[in-house]
Amino acid sequence: MLTHLALCSHPNPKQVLIIGGGDGGVAREVVKHTAVETATICEIDEMVVKVAKQFLPQMAKGFESPKLNLHIGDGFEFMKQHQGEFDVIITDSSDPVGPAQSLFQKEYYTLISGALKPDGVLCSQGECIWIDLELITKMNKFCRELFPVVDYATMSVPSYTCGQIGAILCSKSPDISFRDPVRKLSEDEVKQMDLKYYNHDVHRAAFIVPQFVKQAFS
Amino acid sequence: MLTHLALCSHPNPKQVLIIGGGDGGVAREVVKHTAVETATICEIDEMVVKVAKQFLPQMAKGFESPKLNLHIGDGFEFMKQHQGEFDVIITDSSDPVGPAQSLFQKEYYTLISGALKPDGVLCSQGECIWIDLELITKMNKFCRELFPVVDYATMSVPSYTCGQIGAILCSKSPDISFRDPVRKLSEDEVKQMDLKYYNHDVHRAAFIVPQFVKQAFS
Repeated sequence: MLTHLALCSHPNPKQVLIIGGGDGGVAREVVKHTAVETATICEIDEMVVKVAKQFLPQMAKGFESPKLNLHIGDGFEFMKQHQGEFDVIITDSSDPVGPAQSLFQKEYYTLISGALKPDGVLCSQGECIWIDLELITKMNKFCRELFPVVDYATMSVPSYTCGQIGAILCSKSPDISFRDPVRKLSEDEVKQMDLKYYNHDVHRAAFIVPQFVKQAFS
Repeated sequence: MLTHLALCSHPNPKQVLIIGGGDGGVAREVVKHTAVETATICEIDEMVVKVAKQFLPQMAKGFESPKLNLHIGDGFEFMKQHQGEFDVIITDSSDPVGPAQSLFQKEYYTLISGALKPDGVLCSQGECIWIDLELITKMNKFCRELFPVVDYATMSVPSYTCGQIGAILCSKSPDISFRDPVRKLSEDEVKQMDLKYYNHDVHRAAFIVPQFVKQAFS
């Protein structure tokens, strides 16, 4: 879902970077988009990749694509060395405690902004509205200082805490509307891509948040 | 949320029946609508009411309203004796195992249809898309045999299994569109009514279901 929210919002997403995502699930979805030429995974923990290949073959399918580059290393370092290269950057992180904490801070988003092309788009795991509203509100605020377009989507994922997870989307170009994405997948495309959750209407509705979240963001 | 989906879809909801709902939570929301003259709770288990009043005072607030009638008894029997009386009937049930099983069957919906006025609307707890899709699909099908308008909404409730719950909405009148409700609450009304989750946009977006649910219903 994070993947398609981002990729359908970009007019021509050729170079995609995934920070984290070592289970291959996000990459599996990224490479379904015909515009994508290269999907680069930058995963800090090689063991995640090994375990996913062994125990989560349905997720690890993404590694089989010829479009895929796997880089084992720190996302911060990787982005410093690859400034201005990506159309889309997706952060598929764990929760903001311990090692992933730095992925929820302004410095990280500043670095993403630098690693994106001038019309680039980012989509990051945006935590849970029921638990992390304070953090999400803070992230929305500092993202607005860095990007002309910032929006927040929410989706139902039963295996996550509270069954809900969000996504923060930012665009360097002021011309992008995440709620009205430039690429509208047809019913046939949705079927060909074997999408189980995402479709165009789901994309648009995902940006409608409960009243208490709307108030927190205002 | 179930309450406002139903009541905002009816042009003039004066008489409202709640089947179950002995904790008072649904009634608390029903009586916020100025059009409502009477909210009748028909709860089979008096102990639910007692326990809610003792331990869930925020839910049980609904019992304080002068609009409220509390009837302890079986919903089936009550509706047989009150045919054609209600503008809106809301089913606030537990899950379809054991005592609540009969509330997820065609006979129950036939009885609701009889207890509604000719332009009446019902809203029932519609279970979880991740667990009960087969049951939900079956319910959608038999509701379509009974009512000219049937729709399904979904919402995020962290305390429910998988963090998601649905609502089945049916109208006896063909002129009602649940996705485009006749009553559009203003931002001021939402604040006055102290709504934490519901607003007009949330109402409309709730009817957009994930692709796998859309396919199951088609």
